[in-house]
Amino acid sequence: MKICRVEKPLVATNRIAALEHRHLQVVRDGKSLLVAVDAVGCTPGDWVICVGSSAAREAAGHKEYPSDLTIVGIIDHWEED
Amino acid sequence: MKICRVEKPLVATNRIAALEHRHLQVVRDGKSLLVAVDAVGCTPGDWVICVGSSAAREAAGHKEYPSDLTIVGIIDHWEED
Amino acid sequence: MKICRVEKPLVATNRIAALEHRHLQVVRDGKSLLVAVDAVGCTPGDWVICVGSSAAREAAGHKEYPSDLTIVGIIDHWEED
Amino acid sequence: MKICRVEKPLVATNRIAALEHRHLQVVRDGKSLLVAVDAVGCTPGDWVICVGSSAAREAAGHKEYPSDLTIVGIIDHWEED
Amino acid sequence: MKICRVEKPLVATNRIAALEHRHLQVVRDGKSLLVAVDAVGCTPGDWVICVGSSAAREAAGHKEYPSDLTIVGIIDHWEED
Repeated sequence: MKICRVEKPLVATNRIAALEHRHLQVVRDGKSLLVAVDAVGCTPGDWVICVGSSAAREAAGHKEYPSDLTIVGIIDHWEED
Repeated sequence: MKICRVEKPLVATNRIAALEHRHLQVVRDGKSLLVAVDAVGCTPGDWVICVGSSAAREAAGHKEYPSDLTIVGIIDHWEED
Repeated sequence: MKICRVEKPLVATNRIAALEHRHLQVVRDGKSLLVAVDAVGCTPGDWVICVGSSAAREAAGHKEYPSDLTIVGIIDHWEED
Repeated sequence: MKICRVEKPLVATNRIAALEHRHLQVVRDGKSLLVAVDAVGCTPGDWVICVGSSAAREAAGHKEYPSDLTIVGIIDHWEED
Repeated sequence: MKICRVEKPLVATNRIAALEHRHLQVVRDGKSLLVAVDAVGCTPGDWVICVGSSAAREAAGHKEYPSDLTIVGIIDHWEED
């Protein structure tokens, strides 16, 4: 799993129906910005654990959900490397 | 999911039948150009959310579809990093 | 999907039976050389679309086929970036 | 599989239920820090084998477990490259 | 698939049972060292084809096997790039 920092929510009004109304967050993974489905309810600035690969689908709620990156936990304490 | 910018449509007349007649878009992911199946109907210049991994298959319509990158949403507002 | 250029066929006499007698091509992905299963019949110099992840298996013919990169189309016209 | 060094346990009190109470370890993969589910019982400083992709789920115990990186073995002797 | 060079066998006495007693090889992929399950019987110095993603599991023998990188063929002739 990746250790990412939550930057801000992402709004995409025009989206496929399968994404439903789940919250999407822009997260920073080192120098890259990625989009993750928020399964825990986090806020900007949180350090979070993001799961990828096929595990991201079930972590987002059910195995047909089209996610490849899902926030599965908020890290209690983290010092940037 | 990746945040990409749509560059242009891609034409590949000689393709496997399983790709069907779905639209393919060349998208820019940072410095790399990738090909994504367009599931939302986007145009060059759009900033889009692309899902990869096995989720790209169902996002493209059904789970036998051979995609590893599918455009699943158009971002309302995006400022390049 | 990746945009790659076909370099040359690859011969691996000692291979697992599940690979069958499918043609393998060495393809260039930017600075890296990769091996892809050829599902379209391409020749060195062709610019091709390669699908990875679990989609590569079905693209190669059936979902038990052990491929993680399969050539699924030949691009009609491509100018290197 | 990746060759990683175990850094320290990771605490994430606010996590999705599917992660259960499995131990999570921060592991170093070259210059990157990642989070892995510990399936062998390792301690900081151990050099370990981490499996990713969909195999990480079954390696963590069952195929619905939402892991994309699981520690599956401790290397007997390893000299850093 | 990746083109890797076999470096040496890897010994991990403390491993999960699902890894069984299959041989593990340290392989070089450019500047990185990875661990692959050996499904062909190779020796150090061999240039090999390694399959990743979910295909690595079936290539290792059965689809529950927890591999994300499996050696599936030995290349007849290879000149380093």
